[in-house]
Amino acid sequence: MPTYAAPTRDMQFVLHDVLRIAESDVPGYGDLDRDFTAAILGEAAKLAEEVLQPLNRVGDEHGCALENGVVRTPPGFADAYAQMRAGGWIGIDVPEEFGGQGLPYLMYSATGEMFVSANMAFNMYQGLSHGAAYAIRMHGSAAQKATFLPKMTDGSWTGTMNLTEPQCGTDLGLIRTKAEPLDDGSYRVSGQKIWISAGEHDMADNIVHLVLARIPGGPDGVKGISLFIVPKFLVNEDGSLGDRNGVSCGGLESKMGIHGNATCVMNYDGATGYLIGEMHKGMRAMFTMMNEARLGVGMQGLAQGAVAYQNALGFAQDRLQGRDITGAKNPNGPADPIIVHPDVRRNLMDQKSFVEGARALVLWGSTFIDRAAAGDAEAEAMISLLTPVIKGFLTDKGFETTVLAQQTLGGSGFTTEWGLEQFVRDARIAMIYEGTNGIQSLDLVGRKLGLNGGKTVMAFFEMVKSTLAEAKEVDGMEAFAGPLKAASKDMQAASMYFVEEGLKNPDNALSGSYDFMHLFGHVCLGFMWARMARASLEALAAGTDDPGFHETKLATGRYYMARQLPMTATHLARIRSGAEPVMALDAASF
Amino acid sequence: MPTYAAPTRDMQFVLHDVLRIAESDVPGYGDLDRDFTAAILGEAAKLAEEVLQPLNRVGDEHGCALENGVVRTPPGFADAYAQMRAGGWIGIDVPEEFGGQGLPYLMYSATGEMFVSANMAFNMYQGLSHGAAYAIRMHGSAAQKATFLPKMTDGSWTGTMNLTEPQCGTDLGLIRTKAEPLDDGSYRVSGQKIWISAGEHDMADNIVHLVLARIPGGPDGVKGISLFIVPKFLVNEDGSLGDRNGVSCGGLESKMGIHGNATCVMNYDGATGYLIGEMHKGMRAMFTMMNEARLGVGMQGLAQGAVAYQNALGFAQDRLQGRDITGAKNPNGPADPIIVHPDVRRNLMDQKSFVEGARALVLWGSTFIDRAAAGDAEAEAMISLLTPVIKGFLTDKGFETTVLAQQTLGGSGFTTEWGLEQFVRDARIAMIYEGTNGIQSLDLVGRKLGLNGGKTVMAFFEMVKSTLAEAKEVDGMEAFAGPLKAASKDMQAASMYFVEEGLKNPDNALSGSYDFMHLFGHVCLGFMWARMARASLEALAAGTDDPGFHETKLATGRYYMARQLPMTATHLARIRSGAEPVMALDAASF
Repeated sequence: MPTYAAPTRDMQFVLHDVLRIAESDVPGYGDLDRDFTAAILGEAAKLAEEVLQPLNRVGDEHGCALENGVVRTPPGFADAYAQMRAGGWIGIDVPEEFGGQGLPYLMYSATGEMFVSANMAFNMYQGLSHGAAYAIRMHGSAAQKATFLPKMTDGSWTGTMNLTEPQCGTDLGLIRTKAEPLDDGSYRVSGQKIWISAGEHDMADNIVHLVLARIPGGPDGVKGISLFIVPKFLVNEDGSLGDRNGVSCGGLESKMGIHGNATCVMNYDGATGYLIGEMHKGMRAMFTMMNEARLGVGMQGLAQGAVAYQNALGFAQDRLQGRDITGAKNPNGPADPIIVHPDVRRNLMDQKSFVEGARALVLWGSTFIDRAAAGDAEAEAMISLLTPVIKGFLTDKGFETTVLAQQTLGGSGFTTEWGLEQFVRDARIAMIYEGTNGIQSLDLVGRKLGLNGGKTVMAFFEMVKSTLAEAKEVDGMEAFAGPLKAASKDMQAASMYFVEEGLKNPDNALSGSYDFMHLFGHVCLGFMWARMARASLEALAAGTDDPGFHETKLATGRYYMARQLPMTATHLARIRSGAEPVMALDAASF
Repeated sequence: MPTYAAPTRDMQFVLHDVLRIAESDVPGYGDLDRDFTAAILGEAAKLAEEVLQPLNRVGDEHGCALENGVVRTPPGFADAYAQMRAGGWIGIDVPEEFGGQGLPYLMYSATGEMFVSANMAFNMYQGLSHGAAYAIRMHGSAAQKATFLPKMTDGSWTGTMNLTEPQCGTDLGLIRTKAEPLDDGSYRVSGQKIWISAGEHDMADNIVHLVLARIPGGPDGVKGISLFIVPKFLVNEDGSLGDRNGVSCGGLESKMGIHGNATCVMNYDGATGYLIGEMHKGMRAMFTMMNEARLGVGMQGLAQGAVAYQNALGFAQDRLQGRDITGAKNPNGPADPIIVHPDVRRNLMDQKSFVEGARALVLWGSTFIDRAAAGDAEAEAMISLLTPVIKGFLTDKGFETTVLAQQTLGGSGFTTEWGLEQFVRDARIAMIYEGTNGIQSLDLVGRKLGLNGGKTVMAFFEMVKSTLAEAKEVDGMEAFAGPLKAASKDMQAASMYFVEEGLKNPDNALSGSYDFMHLFGHVCLGFMWARMARASLEALAAGTDDPGFHETKLATGRYYMARQLPMTATHLARIRSGAEPVMALDAASF
């Protein structure tokens, strides 16, 4: 059975030694001193380790069942959900006026990593709800906020997002679900939505569906799509629950992983809905939710990689097979633990150096969300730029990490018993949902690179540059500065290629978009490692009482720089090969 | 539901246009003209497409069940197995004296790809048996051959290989299963073996287990291991079945994929066994079987990638989402098929260029097996060198290909309904069994590179060199020769690094072994693509009646050279970073 120990020490390092949050000028961060964040992370760790993690296998084995229109969640989920609610975790970053804790998003992210590592399928129930509540908070009317947010914040109600239909996933312009206006200002919503995570379940009193639909007579395509609130139970004036609305779960999807989360076919049969935000501007409101969701999904990649790595490490330290080629390390035992073998090390170091770099990236990214929420437009642009990288790169690499971890266990990794194979199956979805990673790469190259006339990506390069400049002053940074500089140059060269050749033929840019997303991701993790290295070097210079932690951090970072960053050259070479090799064949010639 | 169409056209191209088998000097190849191989491949295709493929999902859903010591295979498997037997496929490459068809191993490989693409879990029943029979053929006594081979060749009996025990997988020196000699020359075998594929099932009259065990008093470690034949039912003098032997299935493993194949715990309880080959030389006999099995596993990577690609392609040609950025391709439809999008193309071309290159590599590799069987020692050395590359690289990339194919389908790829997720789960085991891919890389760098004092790898480089030299004479080969030359240089540089730095510290070589396996794999596929390109250019120059096939082949190859071969530079950079980054941490510091 897999185990999980929440990485509070590592998170504290990123929050305080690297990001120095308590000293930063982000509104609300002043309260986040070491003791305070330690207390929060410690409590979250308990919930994750003791309540959620033991249910991870249970959720996978039992899955969800649809019985007479009701979805039964796996045994224990409802209790665990009650404990999550009681701890106030769902509303940790929601303003106090709606019943939340009013902490920064950063702390939602940090605690969220733990919950996802412990039980990804379970945490999706609150994760989706969190996104839906956020969209209502940003785009809803005062009355809508008053009606829905307190309940969604305390978790007594949950929320969902309803985009996909059988004929349209990525291309939302093809949406057919209809919303006919009624005299009382509400709408009659009819249509079918598929792949609705947590669309129906037995853990909350009400479910608030956010539904994309067309108001008849509006423009075709995405310009005629509006967003509606469609509650499972109508809500009376006094806030009590009224009649069951015309929405029901028509089936559950059988799928590769996240069995503990109900993936529902949702049928809207003249259901009562309420327009949220402006008519025909539904995409804008939906993107509010989706962007937050995309960061959350990137974090899922990290979180599944993190727990898989932990379990691979435990196995590698225990399992005795073969002898260290340079001399037995466990001479009195029948064999040495497999962690002595260089190729097992390589595998573990790939996992470890990714996980720790990715954790820093997610937390750093979260600081931009908090800045943006406080009105910082440049921060908002920066997180817009980084979102497809965090979503696409971290889920690809997070999945890869679970596969590497599974490999560490050899045959045991393929068995259900050891639980690694579940991490692989669960992590796989993160590369697909909330916009496939291919779509992320298009968003990055087609939209985000050109944001503010390219100023945002230039601001990113400036940050890297200033870290490189500072590195010159610090002994021990050479192993970080050189590879980061080279990788950053590759990224600049790729960006130039897109500008020059993409103008001639957009396919030249689009054919390299996926490689660019990975190139950017490597630069981001290299950048994070440079910053972590600097923090560790400073801690060591200052005579830290935990030198082992920082020496390990530095060695892990050097591994990433030496063994992962060279990948940027291959991505650049692929990008520069342009559209010709990719587009040469007719569709019929494949 | 996924579909499968066997790639007979592509196989014919490799066999006849590239390998020119009918004109080659390999014994037995003279009969393999185009019509003859077309007939064989056509018949195998029918079995694969019409009988095996429809059972693939069935096997996954039903799995195997252990009831009162008997393993029930999925519905339909026994019938399909009877059809496979009736067609003579199991013994296609077995000499006629044992009841086989006496065809070259090459044809076993080609037809095997189809069977594995159609139903990997099913084909393992005959695949393992084929390996066990091969070991008996190579190492058994005349009496053992006479008793077991005809039955295993006609498929009325199957065979297994029993290596792993709970405390030992890779490190077979830790084996505890005991074989005590009896007065009649037989042995009493006792112990437990785990992860025994097809260890027990209901499709054959008898199961012939090949079991590694220790004869008491022998040397410790791998030097004291012998190989035994332990039949499920004892065989009477007249060949009829006698008493049930003391071997039984104690449980089935619950696992990520290949559910249709029974992965058994096998308990040997004073079972009667017969020594095969020499006492204490069991590893040698086992390796005969394992090397063949490793090639078969490499082919599984290819085969699962191939069927996954076919289904991804079908989806990409049908699914309408979005518009081609350079102008609508399906203006009268609601959207264009997604194959118009460059990033979908990139994904499909990665799949296609791998699959076709890998197919050529497996078939080319099989020719060395046939040469080796005819006594060609250099061919035997060459396939020994290539085996870890074929096993490790093709299964890693084959798995990656199934993941890419799954990604092509977006959300549908995650659902059970579309079947892509099964290919991913099934393909995953191939990276693990028959020696994990980490072990393959150690075998490659630690043993195979130095084979015959390095002459074998030099012979490989010579083949590449002569292809490069010939390429100079042929218009159109530039796009192939340049990248292949660069990749081959990277491989030579890596080999030099191992020689120079590996002598100083073996960890310098072992830390780069995995990257070297992939570097070598890229060179192999680049080499195959150069040879295929040449064949297609010649066919076009000769006025082939199928120019479209050859133009497509060339475009696919150019893609591989432009987009995949640059990867060798990254592998070389990693290799050259040496042991330090990999080994820096103490085991306790992770």
